[in-house]
Amino acid sequence: MEMYLPILFVASLLFSYSHGSVLDFCVADFSLPDGPAGYSCKKPAKVTVNDFVYSALGIAGDTNNLIKAKVTPAFAAQFPGVNGLGLSMARLDLAVDGVVPIHTHPGGSEILFVVEGTICAGFISSSANTVYFKTLYKGDVMVFPQGLLHFQFNSGNKPALAIVSFSSPSPGLQITDFALFANNLPSALVEKVTFLDDAQVKKLKAVLGGTG
Amino acid sequence: MEMYLPILFVASLLFSYSHGSVLDFCVADFSLPDGPAGYSCKKPAKVTVNDFVYSALGIAGDTNNLIKAKVTPAFAAQFPGVNGLGLSMARLDLAVDGVVPIHTHPGGSEILFVVEGTICAGFISSSANTVYFKTLYKGDVMVFPQGLLHFQFNSGNKPALAIVSFSSPSPGLQITDFALFANNLPSALVEKVTFLDDAQVKKLKAVLGGTG
Amino acid sequence: MEMYLPILFVASLLFSYSHGSVLDFCVADFSLPDGPAGYSCKKPAKVTVNDFVYSALGIAGDTNNLIKAKVTPAFAAQFPGVNGLGLSMARLDLAVDGVVPIHTHPGGSEILFVVEGTICAGFISSSANTVYFKTLYKGDVMVFPQGLLHFQFNSGNKPALAIVSFSSPSPGLQITDFALFANNLPSALVEKVTFLDDAQVKKLKAVLGGTG
Amino acid sequence: MEMYLPILFVASLLFSYSHGSVLDFCVADFSLPDGPAGYSCKKPAKVTVNDFVYSALGIAGDTNNLIKAKVTPAFAAQFPGVNGLGLSMARLDLAVDGVVPIHTHPGGSEILFVVEGTICAGFISSSANTVYFKTLYKGDVMVFPQGLLHFQFNSGNKPALAIVSFSSPSPGLQITDFALFANNLPSALVEKVTFLDDAQVKKLKAVLGGTG
Amino acid sequence: MEMYLPILFVASLLFSYSHGSVLDFCVADFSLPDGPAGYSCKKPAKVTVNDFVYSALGIAGDTNNLIKAKVTPAFAAQFPGVNGLGLSMARLDLAVDGVVPIHTHPGGSEILFVVEGTICAGFISSSANTVYFKTLYKGDVMVFPQGLLHFQFNSGNKPALAIVSFSSPSPGLQITDFALFANNLPSALVEKVTFLDDAQVKKLKAVLGGTG
Amino acid sequence: MEMYLPILFVASLLFSYSHGSVLDFCVADFSLPDGPAGYSCKKPAKVTVNDFVYSALGIAGDTNNLIKAKVTPAFAAQFPGVNGLGLSMARLDLAVDGVVPIHTHPGGSEILFVVEGTICAGFISSSANTVYFKTLYKGDVMVFPQGLLHFQFNSGNKPALAIVSFSSPSPGLQITDFALFANNLPSALVEKVTFLDDAQVKKLKAVLGGTG
Repeated sequence: MEMYLPILFVASLLFSYSHGSVLDFCVADFSLPDGPAGYSCKKPAKVTVNDFVYSALGIAGDTNNLIKAKVTPAFAAQFPGVNGLGLSMARLDLAVDGVVPIHTHPGGSEILFVVEGTICAGFISSSANTVYFKTLYKGDVMVFPQGLLHFQFNSGNKPALAIVSFSSPSPGLQITDFALFANNLPSALVEKVTFLDDAQVKKLKAVLGGTG
Repeated sequence: MEMYLPILFVASLLFSYSHGSVLDFCVADFSLPDGPAGYSCKKPAKVTVNDFVYSALGIAGDTNNLIKAKVTPAFAAQFPGVNGLGLSMARLDLAVDGVVPIHTHPGGSEILFVVEGTICAGFISSSANTVYFKTLYKGDVMVFPQGLLHFQFNSGNKPALAIVSFSSPSPGLQITDFALFANNLPSALVEKVTFLDDAQVKKLKAVLGGTG
Repeated sequence: MEMYLPILFVASLLFSYSHGSVLDFCVADFSLPDGPAGYSCKKPAKVTVNDFVYSALGIAGDTNNLIKAKVTPAFAAQFPGVNGLGLSMARLDLAVDGVVPIHTHPGGSEILFVVEGTICAGFISSSANTVYFKTLYKGDVMVFPQGLLHFQFNSGNKPALAIVSFSSPSPGLQITDFALFANNLPSALVEKVTFLDDAQVKKLKAVLGGTG
Repeated sequence: MEMYLPILFVASLLFSYSHGSVLDFCVADFSLPDGPAGYSCKKPAKVTVNDFVYSALGIAGDTNNLIKAKVTPAFAAQFPGVNGLGLSMARLDLAVDGVVPIHTHPGGSEILFVVEGTICAGFISSSANTVYFKTLYKGDVMVFPQGLLHFQFNSGNKPALAIVSFSSPSPGLQITDFALFANNLPSALVEKVTFLDDAQVKKLKAVLGGTG
Repeated sequence: MEMYLPILFVASLLFSYSHGSVLDFCVADFSLPDGPAGYSCKKPAKVTVNDFVYSALGIAGDTNNLIKAKVTPAFAAQFPGVNGLGLSMARLDLAVDGVVPIHTHPGGSEILFVVEGTICAGFISSSANTVYFKTLYKGDVMVFPQGLLHFQFNSGNKPALAIVSFSSPSPGLQITDFALFANNLPSALVEKVTFLDDAQVKKLKAVLGGTG
Repeated sequence: MEMYLPILFVASLLFSYSHGSVLDFCVADFSLPDGPAGYSCKKPAKVTVNDFVYSALGIAGDTNNLIKAKVTPAFAAQFPGVNGLGLSMARLDLAVDGVVPIHTHPGGSEILFVVEGTICAGFISSSANTVYFKTLYKGDVMVFPQGLLHFQFNSGNKPALAIVSFSSPSPGLQITDFALFANNLPSALVEKVTFLDDAQVKKLKAVLGGTG
């Protein structure tokens, strides 16, 4: 069937990339410099399907801690396949009484799906400090707009599990308590910018490992 | 405690928005015009927490059909709270032997989390037509770069459930078979642009309801 | 000089827009719907230079309040000329001992120029809770990356004035204390998501006008 | 063939949009408000293939004018199908000695393909005022980076035709001479901001129809 | 004229970039890492006008193949000057009976100008699988929204030539047939995700060089 | 207090970044390659608060030159902390009779705050060449939309100072006179694309140091 060869020939001729480049994706190569748009790309020839698959979200997070919760991220820094693709994911385990304290994601919006259990979740808008919160049940979805303070806690009587996604491969996570009390920001300064009492600040600094 | 009033006064004075506008979010109002960036915003005063919560993904999709699969979207058109927030979600039910036929999302990348079951998923890159596919188990995550052909099917022996997210509130879904065979695109034209045989085209047009 | 007429003719013929549309700018028309990208545009024929000029930042903010500070915004909601242009501005007045409590701008980065006085300013990064803060003097510039908690306070002995700009026409402003204590978020819930003591929460709710 | 009905049933059930919305495209509806991202969308049900096809670029521009050139745009304001799609096109006719005077496109980069004739084209970079210009022949392509001053003129001895595309549906076109001399900007002011002599300014204002 | 020197002095003093950096453009340097936003930039000092000019689109594509068509791209991988500029171009040669089979560009919209001949072109929308197609004549322009399946074929009786542009420097090109049949995707899997018959799949795999 | 240790443990366990990466910011490292989105990032471990503070805008620009004006930029090339953050700043000193000649910023919009003095500022829109200009006094703000020709000059009788911000870390600055007359663009070519007289072009080339 000589007709096959010409088409096959076409298959390679019709459109050929130079430089062996594939810009369909940009799997992060952490050994190269990163820039404002994300990490540099791994050479396409070295990319395999395993770069696009991540299994750590299948493992229950260890909630044996005081907040009884664990966030397991699949951001670009953990899951290089999402680099440059405008999204990422995380697993949220909440034991009974578990809570993800009030926090923001500086770089993206979040959407949450309740896989198991009952979760009370909410966020606060920036202008009028309006609060939007609700108890979510298995199968419910809630969205948290970019950069706004929000929280999730287990409001049921058994462990809860949620899968959350973000509109950025590197959304960041800034837990307000950790930002204020888990570092060397001087207590006097914390008090000045939060109106909190000195005893309260020092108590939380002690709990969260902060100094100063 | 006269000191309370002055601060309270500050609370309203320190920063006040005119026009009662909140640009933290833009819940879709389908009665107003839409534009390239999405739907117009519902007036903030009418927004409630229910605009940010969606429960339809908690309901198992009806897979009692020939492909034995169902995609239940929570895109901006169904879930107005995600409008303008750069993400959306969907539920994917795959009965035994269920398949989501090869398709693309013209407007965004996708990330998938396997909630239950075993799913074989893959995508094809654009330059060298390289195929990346793998069997995914409960808890596995896979990412599908924007605009590329991809598929998912149940490769296990019990129903499978996945939650997928997108990097756009309106990613779109274009199933190749439906695009080719479920409309009035003339058979001769389909054949010309696909190299498929006339009998094959007519068979699938009949199955999928296409005419011409 | 008959040669003038033909060129003049060219001036109108060389390039003509239909619909009298000018997309160089999009001055906000608050009477029309807004969308994810901002407000709708005022008709170009009604736009004057005054739409691009704003004088309220020339007026010293009233710092006669307990935080001894005032933020005067020129965001799109106040200054319609910046709508769609990717930036905005604000004036920051800090009396002696004045402070802008810890806060975020959900929608943009900030850059600050000290016009008068001495200001201590800082921000906290999201991953390791690293603190970056410094005393700024007249003429100093500091940049605060998008979405991160930051603060400014007068660390001198006379009033301070700063001009700040943002990378968005509607960056938002979320002061953590107001978000937590100036609304109807129940005290028990605040305590759960902040680890703060009940007495501290109730004290600040009282000061800032919160209920619940 | 009862098997056909179920699949057909699937075709409509597998994925259904509410609100009859199609966000694949956003054909401009000039009767609705426009915003920073472009014009509002025509209702999908009223969209036809003719919204995506434009024939005015097939007509030679009238170069019977002093600059002996004509730009025929297919921007969103003329060709509503490109609204929201991130690109547009124009036709450039250059009679012998024709010139498109130095100009910028405030909103996008430009790429030019010479269909017929010989065109000298160039641009000037912003930092070191480096000039990049070259004579282009039939089939040559040249790119002009966003916002930079550039020009094209016929450097051959027969009419030239180029097709140009832009990285925006509304790139704008600001011809420096028209911006300076074809309006009511007072001559003294023009002279102050250009260093041009009074006689030169008045001569060009007369030619281009400016006043003041 | 000693006055010249001071101004000249001003010319260099008024505004000086450090680091010899020019961010007006970013000509691709393929020897450096690439990232999600494109290739790294060639040092400005080494950039010449030839980096912004590309001549390969002036050469007729070889259509001596079974599809009787050839796409000659000027994407960033071939034409480094467009890197980072938000656009690119390609030449489309269609011999009599030539066809560009149904395909997508994962990364951008396309606009086509018919230089010579008659071309039937169309695309299919994602939600209702609506088909938009039309016969285009010399001078006609058609736009194809991002990520949607589309096709072009010569519907006249002489060769046709089109110039197409894209809203991305690296739009990609995914021809559905090549994605399905020109690689090692197993036939059984292709059949599962396309509903095509085994004989049809194997026939096309043979024609297009696929294995499995 | 054994309760402290567990929470402290949580503080490090709850969320941990791999690769020591911080994507909250991307301080420019000029020793690494740059790309379309900006400069590569300095390693987070080497970043200090001084990377986010810049003091050069506190120093009055030397206006002892013929235009009696000085622009002191704090763009990414001078102030690496703004890299990737979507904004930058500059200081504008205008002695009596000082002028910033007509110019554009190819990469961003500008907002100006008058710190001292009286400044006449304006811009010209692209379609109808409409001029928008006004005298600004201390405290006034004016915005200049992206890519449009604009100017500022001292219209008072004492020195003026303005702080300007941009919607890009690298907005660029193209002064029309310098682009036309301060380089080696041949006079005949300048005349062809500007309609200026030969004597005028040669006079300005001499003043601004241009050749050819």
